[in-house]
Amino acid sequence: MSSKASLQRTGDSAFKRMDHVSSELFTLTYGSLVLQLIEDFEDYAEVNNQLERMGNNIGQRLIEEFLAKSRVSKCGDFAETCEVIALVGFRMFLGVTGTVSQSAKEPHVCHITLASNPLLDFVELPDEAKGVLQYSNILVGVLKGALEMVQMRVDVEVVHDPLVGDEATELKLTLLEIINDEPPPDDE
Amino acid sequence: MSSKASLQRTGDSAFKRMDHVSSELFTLTYGSLVLQLIEDFEDYAEVNNQLERMGNNIGQRLIEEFLAKSRVSKCGDFAETCEVIALVGFRMFLGVTGTVSQSAKEPHVCHITLASNPLLDFVELPDEAKGVLQYSNILVGVLKGALEMVQMRVDVEVVHDPLVGDEATELKLTLLEIINDEPPPDDE
Repeated sequence: MSSKASLQRTGDSAFKRMDHVSSELFTLTYGSLVLQLIEDFEDYAEVNNQLERMGNNIGQRLIEEFLAKSRVSKCGDFAETCEVIALVGFRMFLGVTGTVSQSAKEPHVCHITLASNPLLDFVELPDEAKGVLQYSNILVGVLKGALEMVQMRVDVEVVHDPLVGDEATELKLTLLEIINDEPPPDDE
Repeated sequence: MSSKASLQRTGDSAFKRMDHVSSELFTLTYGSLVLQLIEDFEDYAEVNNQLERMGNNIGQRLIEEFLAKSRVSKCGDFAETCEVIALVGFRMFLGVTGTVSQSAKEPHVCHITLASNPLLDFVELPDEAKGVLQYSNILVGVLKGALEMVQMRVDVEVVHDPLVGDEATELKLTLLEIINDEPPPDDE
């Protein structure tokens, strides 16, 4: 298993190899998207679903970029997968790193905490949205979509959210199933 | 008037001072937004309007960041404003630089060409959208919104678009009015 320090270096150098835009432009564009969905659906639960669906599509694309540019070799187990997501994946795409916590009793569950979450900059929720709208739900979709492409069916939940007063964004990942140990056949 | 080389350096160093996310994540998120608007409005002209409206709001926010972080001093005239947009503004936020062309006969008009436009990566338009959907229209709104905050009413059009076969994205900016030479009063 790669050490945290080495994964952090991998994340940093993969980030440098990417093209970038300003975090603020991204944040404001994402905010426009969420607002549009709220206007469209007038139902926060449905907005959560839509954000997850969009994230899923995005995750399926980002995993290719991740595999091409991260130079990460195959992950040994779920714990290592989560370290790679936190230290390399989040770093490459969102520019931030996460910290992973896991209990030895539950090897199929891990928590990733993002001390800084660019999605939330300048965001304040109206009271009626608090606890209902999962503003960061696109991340849930991205992780599920990306992991499914590497044969892991994973449940992801936002369990802590600064928009409702929590200290940091915390995601809970639960490995449900390893779909197939073989690489998928070439789709010619 | 600052030289192009010096503005380019200003743009590069302002870009380095920004927080970043990957261009690909931004592009895919923007793509989700455009798709959502197409589903909502089923009318490309209305999608263009909505993108411009969103861009306008974003531009009003980005100009503050621009003034705070670019360290650009007051622009002398419209030509210099356009150079600053192309070499500093686009660089800071989208990570790319534009080139400006202007005719001495029309000092209130300038064209900015973006050889690379991150919004368009992985995008292909269906035939019925070509020439109708202005996929990059958020840029029109951003420029109008940002410039209005610094007392310039400007018309912006996407006049060339790689999605319909043009070589590069080209924006035409027309200065309509300088709203007020004085800085706006403090809004206490």
